Amino acid sequence: MDNIKTDFTDVNTLGEFGLIDRLTTGIENKHSSTIKGIGDDAAIIATGDNQCLAISTDMLVEGIHFDPMYSPLKHLGYKSIVVNLSDIYAMNAEPKQVTVSIALSSKYSVEAMDELYAGIKEACRIYNVDLIGGDTTSSTKGMIISVTAIGEVSPKEIAYRSGAKVGNIICVTGDLGAAYLGLQILEREKQIYMSNPGVQPDLEQQKYILERQLKPEARKDAIKFFKRNNIVPTSMIDLSDGLASDLMHICKASGVGAYLEEGKIPIKQEAQLMAIKFQMDPITTALNGGEDYELLFTIDEKDLERIRYMPDVYIIGEVTDKKDGIKLHTTGGNIHSLKAQGWNHFEEK
Amino acid sequence: MDNIKTDFTDVNTLGEFGLIDRLTTGIENKHSSTIKGIGDDAAIIATGDNQCLAISTDMLVEGIHFDPMYSPLKHLGYKSIVVNLSDIYAMNAEPKQVTVSIALSSKYSVEAMDELYAGIKEACRIYNVDLIGGDTTSSTKGMIISVTAIGEVSPKEIAYRSGAKVGNIICVTGDLGAAYLGLQILEREKQIYMSNPGVQPDLEQQKYILERQLKPEARKDAIKFFKRNNIVPTSMIDLSDGLASDLMHICKASGVGAYLEEGKIPIKQEAQLMAIKFQMDPITTALNGGEDYELLFTIDEKDLERIRYMPDVYIIGEVTDKKDGIKLHTTGGNIHSLKAQGWNHFEEK
Repeated sequence: MDNIKTDFTDVNTLGEFGLIDRLTTGIENKHSSTIKGIGDDAAIIATGDNQCLAISTDMLVEGIHFDPMYSPLKHLGYKSIVVNLSDIYAMNAEPKQVTVSIALSSKYSVEAMDELYAGIKEACRIYNVDLIGGDTTSSTKGMIISVTAIGEVSPKEIAYRSGAKVGNIICVTGDLGAAYLGLQILEREKQIYMSNPGVQPDLEQQKYILERQLKPEARKDAIKFFKRNNIVPTSMIDLSDGLASDLMHICKASGVGAYLEEGKIPIKQEAQLMAIKFQMDPITTALNGGEDYELLFTIDEKDLERIRYMPDVYIIGEVTDKKDGIKLHTTGGNIHSLKAQGWNHFEEK
Repeated sequence: MDNIKTDFTDVNTLGEFGLIDRLTTGIENKHSSTIKGIGDDAAIIATGDNQCLAISTDMLVEGIHFDPMYSPLKHLGYKSIVVNLSDIYAMNAEPKQVTVSIALSSKYSVEAMDELYAGIKEACRIYNVDLIGGDTTSSTKGMIISVTAIGEVSPKEIAYRSGAKVGNIICVTGDLGAAYLGLQILEREKQIYMSNPGVQPDLEQQKYILERQLKPEARKDAIKFFKRNNIVPTSMIDLSDGLASDLMHICKASGVGAYLEEGKIPIKQEAQLMAIKFQMDPITTALNGGEDYELLFTIDEKDLERIRYMPDVYIIGEVTDKKDGIKLHTTGGNIHSLKAQGWNHFEEK
């Protein structure tokens, strides 16, 4: 009766993206309303002459994406919404609704769920989205949260991953690497706590870095700026896997290369210092850390002057021809080919 | 650091619906496009002057909703889509797109995922929906599948749970109880197999009952019939929890009572016989079994003649005044108050 173990190929041999590619091969969309299916931050559905919906979904699994040992449940609820809204913003769309499904084991109390939902409702309030549905059930181990976010966008304003053109300017919002470093601090403190529960960690000094991990924000402001200034990014993606990996998604989808200036990649001083404490190169945490939920986008050169007035945005490179590959011009003056070493959830265990 | 166990109230004390009620209290929708939020088979979003989308999401958890010991993965993939489409049909909407998120433990191979996706794609083909996105990640235990389905419906044709009126006719499609009995057979065979792996069960005789559990279908045909015959059910729900429980959802949402004729409730002969084998009253499996994914709906009396031509539909009762409660007129001539004893996933473990 057991139908699991025949012809066993470990999913690790493919990785997350390899597995998705394999499973979704040959899928063809039948409905004219399906404008964009698998392969971007969100799917796009046409709902009228001049209106589209962006739909995105993400699953957060205890022990893989979060650890309740150090994730306050209120923050976790908040983050579960924000990471999905980030995918909607990455299409240059405005999120309007979310659904939230939760499976939980018996270790979670009603009060724990109250905390989680306090964070979910807080995120809905701050980002102005309606919580319209979901599912609540039990699990045999831990908690699993699945969120679907829905946003509105006019067809002319959609920013796909596939629109980058040679000569476009590569920009990124915010600062990179801190979320990954926050995770390193929390993992370290967990180890200390596990071996000596009497020690209370003093985490106040690392407030910014920890918040970037535990309670990230999505770049609602960027989408507002684009709209106000009549800018439509030629391509856009949110930084969940890391700058290197996510830039590669844009380059692959657009059929282009990229040339990045290491010195222009925004890293906060406290993240730089923390990286060095962990004996890491700060640029590595920025390129490969992931979970920053900033927006990486490209713009036409004509929009360059207007982008300069955009708060908290950094021009980090230029779109090049595909044959030139994806290159990093280091502060030391060398030119490296970029490799993606972003998250692979199948390798984490 | 552990923030789980303070003020511990077990979620079992509330049950699934009690927990959902508690967590979603005070949620107010901010957007005019949110026509219906939490509390029906699907949420409704307005997308244009004469167009709405229905959005529904469900989570299937290994060890709670399915057991890979006896659920062929292809059937499981098929079922995961169908149960969500059933929620879209229950709004009288036509499903167009789905997203599928999957978390899986390392016991699942690439080949197992191929099987699962073969079922998912087969359901998408048969029900004519596009698979437009999702998420694939790892879990620390078993498989979790989260599906979101999206359908189209014109505002005038939406069938909420809340529209039943006194005097309306109560109808149900298909036949009830078999899916629950299928589960009982599979559980029994699993126990036999576990204690003696050499015994191969002969399940051919129970093909229909087993398929109702392992590979249910959603009532696409009913929605087509309504459209063709200009009928809009005054209320509708899909039978996932059991006739008694789901009828109560309609009565509660509509502020009405109901009077059911036991003798009119459709139960297949093979299900009757199987129920008796399991020493159950067949009507109990029909009222409380769950997972039939048939449609329970009410219609205005003026539509009665046209409904008589609807294939595979049964008139089982009448909507009454709220103060009259929800009653079952038994074949023995007694009148009982109906109690819901449907699924409570929090009590199953």
